[in-house]
Parts: sequence; structure tokens; C-alpha cells
Amino acid sequence: MECGTSKIVGCRFSLHPMAGDFIPVIKGALEATDLTGVWKHTDDVSTVIRGQEQHVFNVIKAITLHAAKTGEHVAINATFSAGCPGDTAGDSYMDVDQEVHNHDETKQYVSSQFALYPMNNPDYMSVIYREVDRAKERGVFNDSMHYASGIHGDIHEVFNFYEETFGKARSDEHQHLVMTMSMSINSPSHKGDHHA
Amino acid sequence: MECGTSKIVGCRFSLHPMAGDFIPVIKGALEATDLTGVWKHTDDVSTVIRGQEQHVFNVIKAITLHAAKTGEHVAINATFSAGCPGDTAGDSYMDVDQEVHNHDETKQYVSSQFALYPMNNPDYMSVIYREVDRAKERGVFNDSMHYASGIHGDIHEVFNFYEETFGKARSDEHQHLVMTMSMSINSPSHKGDHHA
Ligand SMILES: [Ca+2]
Repeated sequence: MECGTSKIVGCRFSLHPMAGDFIPVIKGALEATDLTGVWKHTDDVSTVIRGQEQHVFNVIKAITLHAAKTGEHVAINATFSAGCPGDTAGDSYMDVDQEVHNHDETKQYVSSQFALYPMNNPDYMSVIYREVDRAKERGVFNDSMHYASGIHGDIHEVFNFYEETFGKARSDEHQHLVMTMSMSINSPSHKGDHHA
Repeated sequence: MECGTSKIVGCRFSLHPMAGDFIPVIKGALEATDLTGVWKHTDDVSTVIRGQEQHVFNVIKAITLHAAKTGEHVAINATFSAGCPGDTAGDSYMDVDQEVHNHDETKQYVSSQFALYPMNNPDYMSVIYREVDRAKERGVFNDSMHYASGIHGDIHEVFNFYEETFGKARSDEHQHLVMTMSMSINSPSHKGDHHA
């Protein structure tokens, strides 16, 4: 397991279109997204991107939005990480311009769930409770549940919350933070027909 | 966010068939699996099961294997949790018989990635390195990568490793453990055509 230094943010994710022609949906979303701000590598299970925090969140949102706009039922699972000990120095793209490159403001309802794992922090449960309160203040909180919290609303408000909470949940003293996110879009389940 | 007491193991997961008729694949896998050992709840993004450790792993493996046997490209994302402070006592199914109920031994190649998050444990990186070494000893290690480790092989050997490592990576002193797993089956990417 290789991780990142404190300034590098990484996200390992997989995009799952529930469609027979899933490959064009994935490739189309990646091709439509401006990835110049991040390092990227894809293997047979997932894709990882690394770079400045705002680029990582901007790119993940853009990929998700492009996939959503196909109208297919798509799910994205992502793990955001920062500050892991035992880094590799490369693959960082930390010297690029800070301005983000993807600006599509199309509205899109998303339903998601997230969990925060502040590592090696005896006070980690308070961090989690505080960030769940933040979701309520931001108007994107959906529901409490075992092992996660539900976050929903317009994709831009939801990602604004995730980027903010990922920044607020770590500190110089507690740099290693992991946040998992599962998101579902265009799902028949959002109308009540629940499934796994 | 609600969590579990030390003896309860939970798994929140989502099953993603990359197929236009994804609902029958999901419902079929759930119906073909004997779920009597676990409590289960489904919402619009994921499903959570809770119960004794061996039942939780047995059920997740059975659901995955049933979905795989359709021949569709399926992905499963799962977060296993134990020992979270601030529990709810219900939904536990801890009083059931210890013997597992699903016994399909069909061989199936799976490729997956996992990460361990031992919470509030200053020595957590050693736990992670030790468990990656265990994967190598068990013959299921695939690759090192940012933020995760690749685990592959026959589904039964892979799940044996995951159940073993989830048990070994927590202790009475450090009860709160989270393990994320992303698994891909019947993927064209396993033949080299990588995608997100
Ligand atoms: Ca910790």
C-alpha cells in the first residue's frame, strides 16, 4: 500500500454505468473531462487520480456529471485520501496552476453516502459528528444509517460539501484522513424501488 | 452515523451489474442467497447487513458469486466495519446459530482491491503492512498501488483472506476496524482493456 504526503490529495474511484454498453459511458465521461490538473492511472478494478485538493474534487465531479448526463443509471464509488505516512513522492502534479478546469454547472440530483476515517486521532468520533452537523447546515443531509451518512441534492452542492468537509476534517496534527463516498444517479431506487 | 458494538460485524455494500437489465441480476443474487443469518436493510444507494462475522462474509461472498454466475460484468463495493463507538444495540442478529448457510463452491476468478483502516491505533501502519504480507503468504496478492492493495484469485480464496485479515487486524485494545473492498468480475479489463 502506497500513500500520499500531506499536501497531495488522492482519489481512487470506480464508475459503474448499469448499462449493457457501459464502456462508452465510462470512456465518454473521461474524455469529456479536462484532466490536465491531475495525475491519473487506471487498472482493472479502479482509477486513481492525485494532485491538488481542488483539482481532485473538480475532476471527480466532472466525470460523474458527464456520466450522469447520458441518462443511464450510474454509480460511483470513491475513496479520497490525504496525509498517509509512507508516501511515494511521484505522481503528484502539485506544481500545476491552482485554477480548476471543469466548469459545467448543469443541475443533477444525486443521492450518496459517505464516511470519514480520521486516522490515529483519539478524538475522531467528534470530528465525524461535527462534519455530519455541517452537512445538515449545508442542507445536503439526507439520513442517518449504520456506518455512513446519507448526503443528497444537486451535484454541485453535494460536492461543495464533500470538498469542504474533507478539508475541515484534517489538521496539521492529524493529517491522515480517508473519506469514502458512494453515489447513485438516475436510479429507479430514488423513486422508491430500492435495491442493493 | 450509527455504528456497531464490538461483537457485531456490519457490511454496507452496493452491487453494480454493468448490464441494461441490472435489476434482475441484483434481485436474483439476493433471492438466491440464504440471508437468515443476518439483519439486512436496503436504501436507494446501498444495502447493509449485520450479524456474526462469519455470516456477514458468507453472505457477501454468496451474493457476489450468484451475481457473477449470470456472466454479466459485475462490480461490488463493500465496507466492513466492527467495533464502532456509539452503537445502536438493535439490528444485530447475534443470537443465531454460528453455522453458515451458503455453500456454493463454484470457482470464479475475481480481481479486487482493499484497504484497512484500524481506528484510533497509533500503530495502524504496521497492522496494514502485516496484513498485506498475509495476502502474499495466502497467494492472493496481486499488486501494490496508491491507497489500496490488489487482491485476486478464486473467489473462495479471496474471501477466506478477507475474513481472516478482518479478524486479525483488530484486537480487544483496538476494536474499531474498517475494511473497504472493491471487486470486479467478468470484466473485459481483466484481459487488458482497462477502464475506470
Ligand atoms: Ca485512527
